[in-house]
Amino acid sequence: MTPFCAAVDWGTSAFRLWLLAEDGRVLAERRSDEGMIRAGQTGFDVVLEKHLADLNAPDSLPVVVCGMAGAKQGWREAGYLDTPADLGALTEGALAVEGYRRDVRILPGIAQRDAVCPDVMRGEETQLLGLAADGVRSGLVCMPGTHSKWVLLQDGAVTGFSTYLTGELFALLSRHSILRLAVADSTEPAPGDPAFLAAVKAARDNPQAVSNLLFSLRSSQLLGFSPSAEGAARLSGTLIGLELAGAFARHGPANKVVLAGSGTLGALYRSALEAGGIAVDDQPADEAVLRGLWSAARSFWAAGTGES
Amino acid sequence: MTPFCAAVDWGTSAFRLWLLAEDGRVLAERRSDEGMIRAGQTGFDVVLEKHLADLNAPDSLPVVVCGMAGAKQGWREAGYLDTPADLGALTEGALAVEGYRRDVRILPGIAQRDAVCPDVMRGEETQLLGLAADGVRSGLVCMPGTHSKWVLLQDGAVTGFSTYLTGELFALLSRHSILRLAVADSTEPAPGDPAFLAAVKAARDNPQAVSNLLFSLRSSQLLGFSPSAEGAARLSGTLIGLELAGAFARHGPANKVVLAGSGTLGALYRSALEAGGIAVDDQPADEAVLRGLWSAARSFWAAGTGES
Repeated sequence: MTPFCAAVDWGTSAFRLWLLAEDGRVLAERRSDEGMIRAGQTGFDVVLEKHLADLNAPDSLPVVVCGMAGAKQGWREAGYLDTPADLGALTEGALAVEGYRRDVRILPGIAQRDAVCPDVMRGEETQLLGLAADGVRSGLVCMPGTHSKWVLLQDGAVTGFSTYLTGELFALLSRHSILRLAVADSTEPAPGDPAFLAAVKAARDNPQAVSNLLFSLRSSQLLGFSPSAEGAARLSGTLIGLELAGAFARHGPANKVVLAGSGTLGALYRSALEAGGIAVDDQPADEAVLRGLWSAARSFWAAGTGES
Repeated sequence: MTPFCAAVDWGTSAFRLWLLAEDGRVLAERRSDEGMIRAGQTGFDVVLEKHLADLNAPDSLPVVVCGMAGAKQGWREAGYLDTPADLGALTEGALAVEGYRRDVRILPGIAQRDAVCPDVMRGEETQLLGLAADGVRSGLVCMPGTHSKWVLLQDGAVTGFSTYLTGELFALLSRHSILRLAVADSTEPAPGDPAFLAAVKAARDNPQAVSNLLFSLRSSQLLGFSPSAEGAARLSGTLIGLELAGAFARHGPANKVVLAGSGTLGALYRSALEAGGIAVDDQPADEAVLRGLWSAARSFWAAGTGES
């Protein structure tokens, strides 16, 4: 089947490309570690064309791109929509790569130009576009990850959001800090694990104590209060609990959260939220970004709807 | 002049040795990076004897040691006194290195065996002993560093304390996280700098937001709200503000803090505390540890007071 377009989620360290049919079905897929960092050295066009050629994509196939390829250090700077940002405006704000051999559109990010709470996203807005296309147009959305995002969505517009360093802190602390000694002999954090949930609660209830709670992961093992197997679960719970405390203080209390997560991390967030009495609407993150790219592609190129 | 004893502050990564006269005067000093990590490979006795020989110390000179040499991974495990811990009991709890060629005493650490707030110190108790010898026997003591300690001292006894990962978080985030981009072009944090003090206040007032405040160091520069020169001051202020919020919540509000700091870091803490309306009693940290070691040495070996 002839593809309708190619869709690319071009992150900092990951590259994913799909060939899509006009109805959104995935015809072929490629994944690699040629994210912005590596592609910045190899050349973004070289990376893109190599993967398209490997899939025998037609020379005229158009491509829609989201993520860090649109950052200042990316392929072309695609700018930002400012909050409050109607997700429907993402396609109008897209950057066409001028003079390129095929039609490539890079979706913009979203910026919150607020001196007190400045924030930016690139890539997550396309997941949100996908959620909106599936009818999730309002609510508090949690997008766990290296830099977790919490987004207030109102009638298809991003009215406010905040980013938390949670995943990056977990990686740094468990590999490079004194806490590596506290997690070295531990099992992977598992959703619902009492040690994980206790750490979530401790940090949510006492976020001011987090820097001390982190050190106590080590002291509690030294003094025999906590088995070394629980180290990673407690570290993860402490950082996720701090994130929840921050997000709910910022975006207001909620009794329901849309969780755009995946895999174990998504399940950890789900158990942390549910243990706090919050209902979770699961929306797989991978499908959301694909759906968002397809939604944008249709507005660019579907018969009767697009510009070309 | 014949020395009375040698005194060693043996940290994780730093080694310091002084030859002391009986009245506490420093006759000679050595510093190196042969802390517990390197000495654990070379041999603690080899490191100690090399420095003593370089200073022509007599074969019979006794040595008092504090710090990580007394940890489980150190030279000999010197154990812990439990809170509430009378600082006067540190000398009784010292470990004599058995069968060694000279009289070596390693001071114990202090442990807080509390399932909710477990904590340990090794080295700081000797600084506290030095403060007590100088008449500072009660108060809330702040000891800034890689792992900052806050100690409640009551009539010469440690009744409670807490440790904060502040210095280690600063080092990790400024070198290895996305925030390295936010601090790369910045100047060193300076005491009293408005950007530093604003970050201290933001984190003290909203500790639950810290994981977001950290990410916003980067976003605020991307969006032009904050000059790149301020990156390190804001990172430092955010982490110190979180520490202050945690320490005052834990040990109760205080209108005066004994600050056992040194150099720029001590001055940063002083300005952060004073900006929050807290009076600061400066007590140089280096002198405190030396005074504590000397105080212990006198109780071991001074004519008429010691065991030998």
